[in-house]
Amino acid sequence: MKESDPKKKAAALILGAGRVCQPAAQMLSSFGSSQWYKTLLGDDFEDQIHLDVIVGSLYLKDAEQTVEGIPNVTGIQLDVMDSVGLFKHVSQVDIVISLLPPSCHVIVANACIELKKHLVTASYVDSSMSNLNDKAKVAGITILGEMGLDPGIDHMMAMKMIDEAHMQKGKIKSFTSYCGGLPSPEAANNPLAYKFSWNPVGAIRAGRNPATYKNHGETVHIDGNNLYDSATKLRIPDFPAFALECLPNRNSLLYGDLYGIGSEASTIFRGTLRYEGFGEIMGTLSRIGLFDNEAHPILKNEERPTFRKFTFGLLKIDNADPNGALIGEEDITKRILTLGHCKDQRSATMTAKTIIFLGFFDQTEIPTSCQSAFDVACFRMEERLSYSSTEKDMVLLHHEVEIEFPDRQVTEKRRATLLEFGKTCDGKTTTSMALTVGIPAAVGALLLLANKVQTRGVLRPIIPEVYTPALDIIQAYGIKLIEKNE
Amino acid sequence: MKESDPKKKAAALILGAGRVCQPAAQMLSSFGSSQWYKTLLGDDFEDQIHLDVIVGSLYLKDAEQTVEGIPNVTGIQLDVMDSVGLFKHVSQVDIVISLLPPSCHVIVANACIELKKHLVTASYVDSSMSNLNDKAKVAGITILGEMGLDPGIDHMMAMKMIDEAHMQKGKIKSFTSYCGGLPSPEAANNPLAYKFSWNPVGAIRAGRNPATYKNHGETVHIDGNNLYDSATKLRIPDFPAFALECLPNRNSLLYGDLYGIGSEASTIFRGTLRYEGFGEIMGTLSRIGLFDNEAHPILKNEERPTFRKFTFGLLKIDNADPNGALIGEEDITKRILTLGHCKDQRSATMTAKTIIFLGFFDQTEIPTSCQSAFDVACFRMEERLSYSSTEKDMVLLHHEVEIEFPDRQVTEKRRATLLEFGKTCDGKTTTSMALTVGIPAAVGALLLLANKVQTRGVLRPIIPEVYTPALDIIQAYGIKLIEKNE
Repeated sequence: MKESDPKKKAAALILGAGRVCQPAAQMLSSFGSSQWYKTLLGDDFEDQIHLDVIVGSLYLKDAEQTVEGIPNVTGIQLDVMDSVGLFKHVSQVDIVISLLPPSCHVIVANACIELKKHLVTASYVDSSMSNLNDKAKVAGITILGEMGLDPGIDHMMAMKMIDEAHMQKGKIKSFTSYCGGLPSPEAANNPLAYKFSWNPVGAIRAGRNPATYKNHGETVHIDGNNLYDSATKLRIPDFPAFALECLPNRNSLLYGDLYGIGSEASTIFRGTLRYEGFGEIMGTLSRIGLFDNEAHPILKNEERPTFRKFTFGLLKIDNADPNGALIGEEDITKRILTLGHCKDQRSATMTAKTIIFLGFFDQTEIPTSCQSAFDVACFRMEERLSYSSTEKDMVLLHHEVEIEFPDRQVTEKRRATLLEFGKTCDGKTTTSMALTVGIPAAVGALLLLANKVQTRGVLRPIIPEVYTPALDIIQAYGIKLIEKNE
Repeated sequence: MKESDPKKKAAALILGAGRVCQPAAQMLSSFGSSQWYKTLLGDDFEDQIHLDVIVGSLYLKDAEQTVEGIPNVTGIQLDVMDSVGLFKHVSQVDIVISLLPPSCHVIVANACIELKKHLVTASYVDSSMSNLNDKAKVAGITILGEMGLDPGIDHMMAMKMIDEAHMQKGKIKSFTSYCGGLPSPEAANNPLAYKFSWNPVGAIRAGRNPATYKNHGETVHIDGNNLYDSATKLRIPDFPAFALECLPNRNSLLYGDLYGIGSEASTIFRGTLRYEGFGEIMGTLSRIGLFDNEAHPILKNEERPTFRKFTFGLLKIDNADPNGALIGEEDITKRILTLGHCKDQRSATMTAKTIIFLGFFDQTEIPTSCQSAFDVACFRMEERLSYSSTEKDMVLLHHEVEIEFPDRQVTEKRRATLLEFGKTCDGKTTTSMALTVGIPAAVGALLLLANKVQTRGVLRPIIPEVYTPALDIIQAYGIKLIEKNE
């Protein structure tokens, strides 16, 4: 068979239209013309497989835009809700990468099980997905989830450190992990030092998630209302120039179980990275009421208030003529302090600068789409805190572990860091977030195509069978991972 | 005349071999093929002049390397100490740009006076240069000094703000200015958060210069030995993501006179930017004795000590067998604290990390070229704190002025910022320092060629005749200057 068919054909179907699809398609397209895969996937891999890549999106236009300029990649229209179309296309490929919204994955997964095709996603493996474990095993396929950045590369880097420590008979005493999608420092050119690459609704809401972590044996719960105020200053040892802070990220304890360190580690902490000041300012904006979700009386009317008048109301500035008095940074700062929204002058000043920067004192009318203070805040943040076409985002992921070696009676600190920036090529910018999510997903597909991952069922990249070759390929493809021992 | 000779020929001679020459040559070479000069230098400027550019260096190889790949630029051998050669080449051009070491400028200036050719430099106008003012006027030429970054663009941006304020009948109450050549944040990947793009001797010595400034009416003197310890945290309002600090830079009061604000400003401060922690660490290294200049007894012998043994001596670690005990970060931190070199644990830890990073505990021999602790420090810093070929430097210049308007009884804050990064083109990196020094020097030459600057004698770019068109061209050429009023 092999001699008469030296170059077996294989095909991969990428589902989605977001900006993550493009780097995933790009990576799969470079397969065969690059050198990295040979050493990593095996000498005879290239000879066996010629890879066709198809990107399927709800709208043909989006698919075509995604594949534009990428050789050997085709864009097609595909609505995953249309099961005839879905089955037709899935049946024609060897592997599916779903970069659709998480709620769509189960539909795709069921089609993959029925048609016995592997599936890769970059989303969390939720219960609806993990429930498919047995069916996937019976079908002889692998559903590889959490193959993005966070979740994804974070798991891989963490588990590599943890497994290595365990193999050396060490015990993980402390695991701390930080991850953030941020503007690059030069693009963080506003008082909040933050930008949104998509709708801010989700990001602002995430700032009110409660959090749980373990600190030196003590379990700490942070109420959602206090999350912004729990931000603490942070410096990454290898990159001290970034003025960072971190906010506890959801329930860190789950990672103790997932990583098999729940019983040995007295500190388990996962945090979200922001630039310093973000928590203080967002916490103050929240106390001012700018993130209140209820419909606001003044926003119900057809006659629209100006941003200025609305902000006057929130700050309880009693002024019959909002066009009259000139309200400046100092006045707003004082007002914030008087209302007790801030403890110190510096935070109040930073918040005042942010309020002015966001145009909350502008004399223009608030659009009818805004019904609540939260709507107004999101509207202005989306408008004023977006990236320009030349500005770059940044992804920073950093793990630190403390390992106790009872044999040798020593404690070691080890750390692993990923720092990536958006890339501009031919005037087109690909965000580092899209790169670091899309590339691992593509790598997952390659590993399954090359039969490097042979475990079946629903998996995460926390097993060496996945993370060892995946980290190798990710680095060979140009994403730098820095590992240091002390 | 004009009709028979529609395209007059002109020639510029750039003297030097440093990396600043290349961007200067590049800019002059782009003249005629770019569009920016037309609007800025006048409609008929292009039609009149075809510009030949010559780069003259002591070694032909250096000149050829500088001009490599730049169209219409020739490299020649030229030793400015050989007056026959110097006069020959200066007589054949219309303008000279000297980017030689400052001590060479006067020789070139005298030749320019004799041959009646304009001269531009990027160096400070010292007394030997300003003494030539009358001679230059008599010769009808302009010697335009301080056309670099600092001095250079700093003057231009400052004087634009100051002159504007004065024209608006404002008084400058406060002038603060910060400038730094730093690694870009991702290249600041060491505990000191600093790198040297050339020999560190000068930079380390500059850290011991005494400083004087005026703060709210009070004159403050900082002794050279305390300079590192006087570092204060600083955030640039438009770029809060950079964790910066500043060190007072020499005598700021001189700028009060130079800028004509000496009598009205109660605060005049010029500072050097570093990333946070630099001053603390360098101050501690200094107290440990690592910057001591005297020949060290142990370094006199032909038999060389190891870095480790030498550092043991400095830290007074009494250990007969330096190969024996494993000295780690914690031990060094404790030692630094015990010796009283640091006030707090954090600084001591940062210094310990730096000492380890620089290889001061390595078991290799100190080379014979090192005779003092300072030599050893410079040797290791040059070796371990240099840029890799892909790492970028960064230039950050920031002015803040507070203006009082007695008429209107208001105070305004205005700021101007320049942020540039090194550029990589065809695998060749040009530092932002070279760009921001070389481009203004080239712009100075263009302004004189185009007769836009008609004042004769020795000048600095602190007069509108120079800074107005210069800032326009610098920005049109792609260097972004951000100006904000509050």
